[in-house]
Amino acid sequence: MSGRLYGLGIGPGDPELITLKALRLLRACPVLAFPAPESGDSLARSIVAPHLPGNQTEYAIRMPFSAERFPARAIYDEAAKDLGAHLEAGRDVAVLCEGDPFFYGSFIHLFDRLAARFPVEVVPGVSSLTAGAAALGQPLASRNDVLTVIPAPLDDDAIAARLAQSEAAAIIKPGRHGPRIVALLTKLGLAGRARYVERATMQNQRILTLEQIDPQTMPYFAMILVHRTDGAPR
Amino acid sequence: MSGRLYGLGIGPGDPELITLKALRLLRACPVLAFPAPESGDSLARSIVAPHLPGNQTEYAIRMPFSAERFPARAIYDEAAKDLGAHLEAGRDVAVLCEGDPFFYGSFIHLFDRLAARFPVEVVPGVSSLTAGAAALGQPLASRNDVLTVIPAPLDDDAIAARLAQSEAAAIIKPGRHGPRIVALLTKLGLAGRARYVERATMQNQRILTLEQIDPQTMPYFAMILVHRTDGAPR
Repeated sequence: MSGRLYGLGIGPGDPELITLKALRLLRACPVLAFPAPESGDSLARSIVAPHLPGNQTEYAIRMPFSAERFPARAIYDEAAKDLGAHLEAGRDVAVLCEGDPFFYGSFIHLFDRLAARFPVEVVPGVSSLTAGAAALGQPLASRNDVLTVIPAPLDDDAIAARLAQSEAAAIIKPGRHGPRIVALLTKLGLAGRARYVERATMQNQRILTLEQIDPQTMPYFAMILVHRTDGAPR
Repeated sequence: MSGRLYGLGIGPGDPELITLKALRLLRACPVLAFPAPESGDSLARSIVAPHLPGNQTEYAIRMPFSAERFPARAIYDEAAKDLGAHLEAGRDVAVLCEGDPFFYGSFIHLFDRLAARFPVEVVPGVSSLTAGAAALGQPLASRNDVLTVIPAPLDDDAIAARLAQSEAAAIIKPGRHGPRIVALLTKLGLAGRARYVERATMQNQRILTLEQIDPQTMPYFAMILVHRTDGAPR
């Protein structure tokens, strides 16, 4: 009998924001896999490090920071082959996923490659989206607001069109797109309605105004919330 | 010194999908508040019931099922007054929130009324949005997909405009709007791309095709995911 592939949402960064279910499976699976940079420590592994029993096989999926689509595909092909061998041998594999596995998670690449051959269970986690709103002390969306999640790599016209149609928007994954996004929000007259948080719930979380941030050094794990509604009494 | 108001995200329904942090605060606060129907049991309280120590003051915020805006306001005003008295007396108050407090949560009504007077901390939780995608075994959004969350009470034209602009959309809170939403998706030719889950992660979770569901009895805690992309290899 083959093993089961788990996509474990481990939450946004605070080790206390893992669920009981993810914690149970994290400790029970003989094989742990996690994303990692080309060299150095894995953020996902560091989030759960306090919980690890210490007797598991660990597998780092190492991704060059600037990987373009084709090298990334080859890396996921290789990881799927290696993890597939564990599954074929009957060993359960838990893939650690920052936030939630199915919310823009790199787990989706493994899911696409392995779900047809092995049983898969996804354990949802607290996403950076709601963690960011909690950190900012600002509701993400309420009543009949439309909420739009916009990846920062999209071009300016696409982002502007989505912002125009949403009461609440979250621009995610800014990273190197930070300077362009800040310039766009300013041009659209939305800078005053934008709120910024990076690394929400992590020890180095920062909340800044758009004027305070240095867009040149905006991390990937950051979010800009833009509310068009005025927060009238509800 | 006044008490602290906690908005505790307790997750989508499975009691094991609560976070360690919410569990700790849930057990530590002397006062628990939770939404409840006009008569009968609170869903939020039932989710955490296995974890309760049994020595807390409990406060049910009872809302008639069909409350219109003005009765609802009066009910939240009253709850804010009563919970504010606990906070003034120095007692911490934990408000139980299905899913995440700031993701379309009724907690926002209390936050609006109390945040200016008392310290507030929001503990993010696993939302029904990602729990629904996990239950369906279908990624919510990946790579540079735009994700739109659309409340079902919006009118057909507004919903159609948002669906046209999104690679991935989640229509939430269908309830009595179910028949209209199913008719709209069919008219737009999107029925084949829509997937439906109700009460995700609860014991009575159901996954159905649009043809299988009876839209007349669609619950409030249900979601329709609509993906316009074809799921090409990533």
